[in-house]
Amino acid sequence: MERPRIEAALGHSLAHLAPPVGAAAAYSVRAGGKRIRPLLTLACYRAVGGEPADGDAMAVQAAAAVELVHTYSLLHDDLPAMDDDQLRRGLPTAHRVYGVPVATAAGAALQEQAFLTLARAAAEAGLAPRLPAMLRRLAVGAGVDGMVGGQYLDLEAEGKAVDGAGLEAIHRAKTAALFASACALGAMAGGGDSDQVESLDGYGTYLGLAFQIVDDLLDETGDAARMGKAVGVDRRLAKATYPSVYGIGAARRLAERVAGQARASLAGLDGDPSLLEAFLDYVLERLD
Amino acid sequence: MERPRIEAALGHSLAHLAPPVGAAAAYSVRAGGKRIRPLLTLACYRAVGGEPADGDAMAVQAAAAVELVHTYSLLHDDLPAMDDDQLRRGLPTAHRVYGVPVATAAGAALQEQAFLTLARAAAEAGLAPRLPAMLRRLAVGAGVDGMVGGQYLDLEAEGKAVDGAGLEAIHRAKTAALFASACALGAMAGGGDSDQVESLDGYGTYLGLAFQIVDDLLDETGDAARMGKAVGVDRRLAKATYPSVYGIGAARRLAERVAGQARASLAGLDGDPSLLEAFLDYVLERLD
Repeated sequence: MERPRIEAALGHSLAHLAPPVGAAAAYSVRAGGKRIRPLLTLACYRAVGGEPADGDAMAVQAAAAVELVHTYSLLHDDLPAMDDDQLRRGLPTAHRVYGVPVATAAGAALQEQAFLTLARAAAEAGLAPRLPAMLRRLAVGAGVDGMVGGQYLDLEAEGKAVDGAGLEAIHRAKTAALFASACALGAMAGGGDSDQVESLDGYGTYLGLAFQIVDDLLDETGDAARMGKAVGVDRRLAKATYPSVYGIGAARRLAERVAGQARASLAGLDGDPSLLEAFLDYVLERLD
Repeated sequence: MERPRIEAALGHSLAHLAPPVGAAAAYSVRAGGKRIRPLLTLACYRAVGGEPADGDAMAVQAAAAVELVHTYSLLHDDLPAMDDDQLRRGLPTAHRVYGVPVATAAGAALQEQAFLTLARAAAEAGLAPRLPAMLRRLAVGAGVDGMVGGQYLDLEAEGKAVDGAGLEAIHRAKTAALFASACALGAMAGGGDSDQVESLDGYGTYLGLAFQIVDDLLDETGDAARMGKAVGVDRRLAKATYPSVYGIGAARRLAERVAGQARASLAGLDGDPSLLEAFLDYVLERLD
């Protein structure tokens, strides 16, 4: 039920962007993916007792904003100067279709639309007073201390010896920070108190780390058709990964342990955490 | 008196960004420039009768936000996939100092900090209800229908025949849209009514066009030491410019005519337009 509302919100946020930059942005968003981050936002909204009302529209738009940021990060990450990926979600990457200048601009446009989507939703829902804190939370996950900083740490570590702590620092920033923002924004849209927001932020952090460990394992052991993108990329780029640092067996156990930490973060919530527990199961099931 | 406050606001907005991305962002901002856009924001704030108070802090932060967006655009514009410039404001461009990945990320970080600076200021000044409209105005100038779209139009036109109308379309988007946003934001921070906001938006558009015509003329006739950047770049890239389309004499006359349209936009304002008239004089004086 949630997916169509997320897709509609994503489509709406890009409806007025002029081609070709707008077309490249829409292409990247339409390419799809599992929409895990926006689904998390909505699940966290429910977990603090958010109910269908104006707040619900706010949650859906916040969810879309998080996905727009995520898509922008993929688009920039794929650029020749970054990972130079040719295939993403089973399709040619945006810079292969539209060229590097348009793809770079489309990334910037997606980032901007994320902030605007949040701003428009807050105004429409009469929640403008909450907007500064929500924008800040999105920016923390997206920015230099989060995703963008993590992309840099990741690039810089290529071909270098990285230990477990170094790897965690990369992925706390590159992946987990935006998961945490996705969760915190859902809690904020649902009117959660600061304890609930921080608990769900913590849940998102651990879930994000578990997700990344599993992603690394699938890059090592999966096949391109199932993944929808090239596999073995990490090894080609001499990137440190959880399996390369820990070995496959220990990396699997680490994913389970980190997922347990995510589960523990849900203990103090009043609302129903079953959907958030199901996310943890889903992440681990990808390994089966 | 205004410059130090703008510099302080710019410094504050970047104070917590982690290196190296934060360092690259700060390097690009520190490289300076004339700060025309943020000075315009403050001048428009005064032109609608804005007075030192909480609203004043809002105007200074809005001014800084506009300059952060402008700096991000320069940083991305200089990238190898775009104009591939080596020199900017008399210094090596950010990607030459920090590399393309860090410079790309620094551009994204500057854009993000622009939105956040506006959000923080609105919250601190108790003006959160105005924030959605101000964010939208900044985004219109920065985005696909403004600066980012203009950068694309500019790139796409390289080596092609462009007439006067095509050139105006490029520079309305690439340069004038952000000038217009700078002016409109100042009017909004000063509590201007919608007529005042639109008049100053129009002033900014024409001022921006005049500024661009003059910039093209200086690229054709200036020297690198005085400009602080390489000259003759437009010709090397086979870019259409006002002098290449109109000839030097007619381009000078066009700059004066467009500046006259900017001046006419000030007619309906209640406040003191002398500072805004001085800007027009300044832009034209660069030609002397």
